[in-house]
Amino acid sequence: MINYPNGKPYPISTASTLHSPQQPHEPDYGNRGMTLEDDLNIANHYYREQHKALIHKKPIPLQIVSVNYPKRSAAKITEAYFKKPSTTDYNGVYKGKYIDFEAKETQNKTALPLQNFHEHQIVHMQQVQEHGGIAFIIVKFSSDNEIYLMDAQHLFEFWWGQQNGGRKSIPKQTFIANGYLIPQDFKIKIDYLQVVDQYYL
Amino acid sequence: MINYPNGKPYPISTASTLHSPQQPHEPDYGNRGMTLEDDLNIANHYYREQHKALIHKKPIPLQIVSVNYPKRSAAKITEAYFKKPSTTDYNGVYKGKYIDFEAKETQNKTALPLQNFHEHQIVHMQQVQEHGGIAFIIVKFSSDNEIYLMDAQHLFEFWWGQQNGGRKSIPKQTFIANGYLIPQDFKIKIDYLQVVDQYYL
Repeated sequence: MINYPNGKPYPISTASTLHSPQQPHEPDYGNRGMTLEDDLNIANHYYREQHKALIHKKPIPLQIVSVNYPKRSAAKITEAYFKKPSTTDYNGVYKGKYIDFEAKETQNKTALPLQNFHEHQIVHMQQVQEHGGIAFIIVKFSSDNEIYLMDAQHLFEFWWGQQNGGRKSIPKQTFIANGYLIPQDFKIKIDYLQVVDQYYL
Repeated sequence: MINYPNGKPYPISTASTLHSPQQPHEPDYGNRGMTLEDDLNIANHYYREQHKALIHKKPIPLQIVSVNYPKRSAAKITEAYFKKPSTTDYNGVYKGKYIDFEAKETQNKTALPLQNFHEHQIVHMQQVQEHGGIAFIIVKFSSDNEIYLMDAQHLFEFWWGQQNGGRKSIPKQTFIANGYLIPQDFKIKIDYLQVVDQYYL
């Protein structure tokens, strides 16, 4: 496992793709303790294949410092650092609408800690809505295996409330009251566009 | 300079940002032989600041192979490789519309070689249009310092024509006839949304 600077694990791809750095990443359909990110990759891949929507996870932002050029093989990056993302992880287009979201998974049974977000991401999602895009968060409460989609507006309220002495997490009850439980499915895994259809379109 | 696997140069940031890997990248407004990418970063930054549009360049996709965790400092990536991008470099939202484009610069005076693109990017832009988004290319002919915006539809014709024995480049004349010359400006640099307004909205 690779960790972000904040210590959270970042799942790298399977060994087979590590040896073919030129290949674009395809989701792994195997069963190996799927993370929320894995499941969303499968859903997005399915949506693309079915011509339903075009939504991608953005690459991890890195600061590249040095690169070697071995003869007859691919350029090798030998020093790089993780950067704080200035946007959310996922965006794309669905039924002509700009879609933008951040996905978080928590072991916490009762609330999602706000430290899962960076202020840049909050400002980014506010701007998405300002420009007429759809912005939400997808949150998995792992202990119950429940995944919610909730409009980013509710996140903004908690985020800026925290700055004024409010609580440092979003209660699960807020997701139950203001969000939507996403249906889970063997094939699509997390069929969040079904919720987007009901909620936004 | 860092090169992509195909040998094309990839401009890394200035030394000052290299020593603060945690800081989000801000455009450098200095005058140091600006590339098309630098100028587009400035334009997009300006558009964000002015609340005109929310358009970002995506991070370079990398395959991370190994990471070190020195005590008391940021995680250091010690082995990684460039991956072929499966999407275009730029996307975002403008006046409620999903915007997606690829930017290319050529020294060639008369045509843009199609080898500047990957098939994944072509398919991606076709899907963008299929889902109701706006997809175009921004091409700089460096020798004349002319920058054109042209709908991706024309790129598709040349791309698939090439597969059937057609020419391997798009003549500059095609950009003149079917694209729009983007006004250049000291402050915004490449004011491509002015063209989007006229062309698409």
